[in-house]
Amino acid sequence: MTVNPATLVQDEQAWMEQAIAVATESANSGGGPFGALIVKDGAVVVTARNQVTATNDPSAHAEVSAIRAACAELGTFSLEGCTLITSCEPCPMCLSTALWARVDRVVFSADRNDAAVAGFDDRRFYDLFEKKPQEAWPLQVVHLDLPNRTAPFDAWVAKADRIDY
Amino acid sequence: MTVNPATLVQDEQAWMEQAIAVATESANSGGGPFGALIVKDGAVVVTARNQVTATNDPSAHAEVSAIRAACAELGTFSLEGCTLITSCEPCPMCLSTALWARVDRVVFSADRNDAAVAGFDDRRFYDLFEKKPQEAWPLQVVHLDLPNRTAPFDAWVAKADRIDY
Repeated sequence: MTVNPATLVQDEQAWMEQAIAVATESANSGGGPFGALIVKDGAVVVTARNQVTATNDPSAHAEVSAIRAACAELGTFSLEGCTLITSCEPCPMCLSTALWARVDRVVFSADRNDAAVAGFDDRRFYDLFEKKPQEAWPLQVVHLDLPNRTAPFDAWVAKADRIDY
Repeated sequence: MTVNPATLVQDEQAWMEQAIAVATESANSGGGPFGALIVKDGAVVVTARNQVTATNDPSAHAEVSAIRAACAELGTFSLEGCTLITSCEPCPMCLSTALWARVDRVVFSADRNDAAVAGFDDRRFYDLFEKKPQEAWPLQVVHLDLPNRTAPFDAWVAKADRIDY
């Protein structure tokens, strides 16, 4: 994990202003109030807004949309060397997606508490993962331990030409 | 959160066998070793496999892919009343996506430890969210607090005809 030396503090401020503008424009046009950018080598690769209701996709937060679009643009499933600029602190889904995408750096402006004031569940979901005692999972998570549960992993490990990710 | 009374234990076992078969077939054909189903009212809505490397999309885990496909199939961004059957314990990204999708129930077979044996980061990412002391985030997360950080939320709250999600 290295920060590109070409990336300056004023660059990140300008990109954040852009993310906030995208988020505000999204809210004004009926979408979720979130915007994000992926930047690499000092240049913006993609911008994206929240598209949950526009596309009937609960995973289409601005950050996940930006990561997917940047991967498509760059032709890769790894965003090593990239920074995610987002108008609001990424929720656990978005932060996990950034982890899987191997993003170097995440910069956010509004936080989970600002999002909670606007009616969003980000802070609540963090509390669940952080096992805050007052929180209860709103879904059941059940372990059904079948004898062949590792068969897919056995096939994966045995496949010499697999593409690790 | 209610479990449909038509859903029996033997149904979930059969669906899990199907998820494991999809996952094994995925591994054998060069994809990630994970499979998932969305079921509703006692019937399978969609099946999906991991497509990270096939589609250059780090978010395309089997569970997220199943949730996206089920939402497209049902024409909604809410999977209330649905169960997610997955060959392996959902990682934090997939579990968070299930939370946002308002899934009722998640059933898994292999767990984060089985996934770790096969080389996947699921357990490590859980440890990060659960703040296990031995873990360090592999990406920087930085708060850049601009004065207009809540402008998108102000626009959202002011919009009377917004679509809540």
